[in-house]
Amino acid sequence: MLLAFADEEALARALARELGMPLAWVAEHRFPDGEIKLTLPPALPGRVVVLRGLQHPNDRLVELLLTARTARELGAQRIDLVSPYLAYMRQDMAFAPGEAVSQRVVAGFLGGLFDRVLTIDPHLHRIASLDEVMPGSRGIALGAAPLLGRWIAAQWPATTRPLLVGPDEESGQWVEQAGAASGLSGLVCRKTRRGDRDVTVDLPAGSVAGRAVVLIDDLASTGHTLEQAARGLLERGAASVDAAVVHALFQGDAVARLQACGVGRVWSTDSVPHPTNVVSVAPLLAQALREA
Amino acid sequence: MLLAFADEEALARALARELGMPLAWVAEHRFPDGEIKLTLPPALPGRVVVLRGLQHPNDRLVELLLTARTARELGAQRIDLVSPYLAYMRQDMAFAPGEAVSQRVVAGFLGGLFDRVLTIDPHLHRIASLDEVMPGSRGIALGAAPLLGRWIAAQWPATTRPLLVGPDEESGQWVEQAGAASGLSGLVCRKTRRGDRDVTVDLPAGSVAGRAVVLIDDLASTGHTLEQAARGLLERGAASVDAAVVHALFQGDAVARLQACGVGRVWSTDSVPHPTNVVSVAPLLAQALREA
Repeated sequence: MLLAFADEEALARALARELGMPLAWVAEHRFPDGEIKLTLPPALPGRVVVLRGLQHPNDRLVELLLTARTARELGAQRIDLVSPYLAYMRQDMAFAPGEAVSQRVVAGFLGGLFDRVLTIDPHLHRIASLDEVMPGSRGIALGAAPLLGRWIAAQWPATTRPLLVGPDEESGQWVEQAGAASGLSGLVCRKTRRGDRDVTVDLPAGSVAGRAVVLIDDLASTGHTLEQAARGLLERGAASVDAAVVHALFQGDAVARLQACGVGRVWSTDSVPHPTNVVSVAPLLAQALREA
Repeated sequence: MLLAFADEEALARALARELGMPLAWVAEHRFPDGEIKLTLPPALPGRVVVLRGLQHPNDRLVELLLTARTARELGAQRIDLVSPYLAYMRQDMAFAPGEAVSQRVVAGFLGGLFDRVLTIDPHLHRIASLDEVMPGSRGIALGAAPLLGRWIAAQWPATTRPLLVGPDEESGQWVEQAGAASGLSGLVCRKTRRGDRDVTVDLPAGSVAGRAVVLIDDLASTGHTLEQAARGLLERGAASVDAAVVHALFQGDAVARLQACGVGRVWSTDSVPHPTNVVSVAPLLAQALREA
């Protein structure tokens, strides 16, 4: 049985269909003091898959604590978590003494609640795989950049090949994967971050003049990095700039701000529900669940 | 060492003073996407006490997960949690099949992170003590109603004895404890709840005409229960209605609404930081920590 929450309905229905699994809802009531009450189906089969992305991470980590413990009481023996967007993956070391290494703590917490944790493009910098923070091969990371690469290539006639551009060094892996799947070539910028909303993006040496450019990254939150990159690309003569991200976290008016600085289209996978979703990760997740 | 968060500064300083313990802060940074980054002192002694109330419970449960795991990595061997207000204590059974019994799950989660969990007046209905949900005597529940009783009694000249009124059956225990500590007599109303913000309060048989009445309860959130009780008491001729609660959760304009319907003064302990705080729970907590 696939257990899901109403605010991820579209992906839940697509995933249940791909898996051929019955879909049931976790009902959620939120009290005025911030507590939540969850109600699961009263009887569960031995194998349960829980779908819950970790955008708005703290509320959802508590949801997952309540869901996993309750599901086991209701009969589930094996519970796999599908968290298309996994939060807290960036704080992967103590940058100053005393800092909580949230990646390790959160991964350990989820690994203790679930038998398997499947996710898409977790933002791993200094570790090579989820195994390092979720022992026993509990963590499975899938990649959606190839899906974006193929989507992007299909938006132009075969005679026009858009150029993929990663807004910072870390996005190099997604540029590469999207490029390999689509045959599109790519460049990577260099980013300097001075604060949560204060970044500078230096463009790469290659020419972008007259090119249809697509910025590609794993996630966008405030959108400031994409914004800075887009401005630079347009100043350097790019014919157009579109943007594609795996995880559309987009806070507040981030998409409108991107469009205001010249970005044409904004595309994302449905790993995080958002009006920009154009590619579904359901088949990718379903295949991995069948093999897990 | 007492570890505390800046938004509970007053209680933290009072508790450190009572305990004669050095006080250090957990620094918190909140990212635009809702993730938090915590920084603890880089080296910790073997015994650490963490102060964190669970108002705004979901964010703070994640803070506690990060804090406890990081404190152990930084050298703490015994970590006691002081959570003056403990959330999720009301959902203590599955009222419908499939409901998460949040009390048991959250208590088990905290009991797994900390060696001892001290709290004040947890809202327990159907269980007698925290032992039932936090095995191994990890949970210690203290009572602050006697402090409120003595504070209330001291606000009137000896010739005027205010009447304590509990707005519902469950508040009977706090009316009783406050009465025993202060010599004040009390009555208890009966409440019917039809929704989070929709309650009816039936007054008890005893006369309130001409009396100075003080409503007393363990917590107030929306304040609707106190509001209904206050209206009824004033209609029945109470000379004045004040209100005293242990945990001042008060959402939004709750205090202003209470005053608008005729409540004079609103008092609370400092278990939850709030402008209505008049009595400190620091000595009570310090004594229990010394004995724990």
